[in-house]
Amino acid sequence: MREKILALLKEKSPSFVSGAEMAGRLSVSRTAVWKNVNLLQADGYRIERSPRLGYRLQEVPDLLYPLEFAGDLETKIIAAERRLIHYHRQVDSTAEVIKKLAEKGAPEGTIVLAEEQTGGRGRMGRSWYSPFAGGIWLHILLRPPLTPAQTPLLTLLASVAVTKAIRRLLPHVEAGIKWPNDVLVRGRKVCGILTELKAEPDIIHYVITGIGINVNIDAGKFRAELKDTATSLYLENNNTRVSRQKLTAFVLEEMDTFYRQYLSAGSLPVIEEWKKYSITLGEEVTIKNVLDVFWGKAVDVDSSGALVVEGKNGLRRHFQAGEVTLRGTGR
Amino acid sequence: MREKILALLKEKSPSFVSGAEMAGRLSVSRTAVWKNVNLLQADGYRIERSPRLGYRLQEVPDLLYPLEFAGDLETKIIAAERRLIHYHRQVDSTAEVIKKLAEKGAPEGTIVLAEEQTGGRGRMGRSWYSPFAGGIWLHILLRPPLTPAQTPLLTLLASVAVTKAIRRLLPHVEAGIKWPNDVLVRGRKVCGILTELKAEPDIIHYVITGIGINVNIDAGKFRAELKDTATSLYLENNNTRVSRQKLTAFVLEEMDTFYRQYLSAGSLPVIEEWKKYSITLGEEVTIKNVLDVFWGKAVDVDSSGALVVEGKNGLRRHFQAGEVTLRGTGR
Repeated sequence: MREKILALLKEKSPSFVSGAEMAGRLSVSRTAVWKNVNLLQADGYRIERSPRLGYRLQEVPDLLYPLEFAGDLETKIIAAERRLIHYHRQVDSTAEVIKKLAEKGAPEGTIVLAEEQTGGRGRMGRSWYSPFAGGIWLHILLRPPLTPAQTPLLTLLASVAVTKAIRRLLPHVEAGIKWPNDVLVRGRKVCGILTELKAEPDIIHYVITGIGINVNIDAGKFRAELKDTATSLYLENNNTRVSRQKLTAFVLEEMDTFYRQYLSAGSLPVIEEWKKYSITLGEEVTIKNVLDVFWGKAVDVDSSGALVVEGKNGLRRHFQAGEVTLRGTGR
Repeated sequence: MREKILALLKEKSPSFVSGAEMAGRLSVSRTAVWKNVNLLQADGYRIERSPRLGYRLQEVPDLLYPLEFAGDLETKIIAAERRLIHYHRQVDSTAEVIKKLAEKGAPEGTIVLAEEQTGGRGRMGRSWYSPFAGGIWLHILLRPPLTPAQTPLLTLLASVAVTKAIRRLLPHVEAGIKWPNDVLVRGRKVCGILTELKAEPDIIHYVITGIGINVNIDAGKFRAELKDTATSLYLENNNTRVSRQKLTAFVLEEMDTFYRQYLSAGSLPVIEEWKKYSITLGEEVTIKNVLDVFWGKAVDVDSSGALVVEGKNGLRRHFQAGEVTLRGTGR
């Protein structure tokens, strides 16, 4: 009901719509209309009330209510139905919330979104700054009929989807991907992606992909140690606010498209897209993993998603894991 | 203390040892000795008491008390310390218990053993019959520095360890491995292995390996639908009981040895051992996976643990997953 009233208010905006008209069109009492307008106001919608003219929508809050971003969503798996979208104002971490849902058997395509994470985490348990309404803090649950060996591709896929979504919304912002899946703008990280899976050796039970995008975060808000390595779309967009609602919809749509393509057509298209956005290929890199440190030129990504690095002697090594830094930049 | 008193009773058995002597050697009161003998009796140890002669151990219960199987255990990682061994008389499932321990950060080498599982599970959520003291119902927690793509090897490794342990204890029982990891005797399953992992795409967080071995289960105890496909070591050992304590120690030792070898020397030695025990290679098989059904001759296992099947036309396919049946036998 709340959603229907909001739709009517939006339809009429910037004009007024009377309580009587809304009640009539929705076949409810005027009291019911009044109550639902109260609820919308409590959610942050600015609605003007006039005893004579009725109600008028003045401002939609910049929050990720499903009714704001999911109305026209064109996805077939991810967030394809309203019941798959779990929205929270504040959580400890979207990872913990979605894991619990996954363990309870939540279906593929379930997503968890929060305005704020109080204990958001990145790779290696590092904390991830996730202030209220400052970014997109999102987890997606998938149950692909794949083996664990194929999950690196899902991670590349997520980075491709985010990059494409950012470019769709902000064509002038040059988002690119650092292997395997950091999304950077001008050498600074704007999005981190974290994938976890539960599996048997030959079949994935579920994969959860966490996507954290710094959207409307001001430079002063980053911790000192992040100042040189992190950025936000706001900062890259001439200090102009970016619609989180639109970006969320774009990210979900791109994820959905690439995921279905991967299931039907295999890894090649994803890898081709990844290469298009790569800022790692062609560069001299240092790659560090648990075993050793290797220097060379990043020349390719193979069909499993591994980075191919060519050393001085022409020897090519395939890295499934490791931390890459571009030589010279320290990043 | 209970353990020390038991050690003394075993040392003197089949003779008596007086309460005074035990109290003296262990520097405790005679009341403390008396109390601990009570505890041992409650655990199923048969101990004769004589007011004049003291105590005499008559029978050790056929239960998997750590102090019965772990005393001389020669392992470096798995169950290498007493605190790593979690023993239960009855649990819902060892999988659930060890998952909780793993999530709380339990160290590599942690094991969970139960005399009975009331809700034991096999592959695909099938129930696994786990009667009291009828078998070895065991889970092992590992935290290998490997990628998820390498877990199929851990599964092969576990089947090799169990097969070798059975052959060490019962050389005349011809245990063999059906790809990937069922241990069979005369075509019937004596052990099932189930591996689950939690990981990021490039690094395993933990792997839990469940091992269920039918040891002293009588033919009449198997459900009707298992009669032709399951067996127990008792049945294959001329209806003679088999020491679960010894077999547990052997399984843990073999797992430990092969695991450490895998970490230091890679997959080749494991695969060689697996091939030695294989009952699948060289056979005409049907392999069924989510995508299709394929017929051919099982000719090899590749370095990733995948089964290589050669079709009529000479085409070789590598299967990372699937259910194999030996042609003609229906098993």
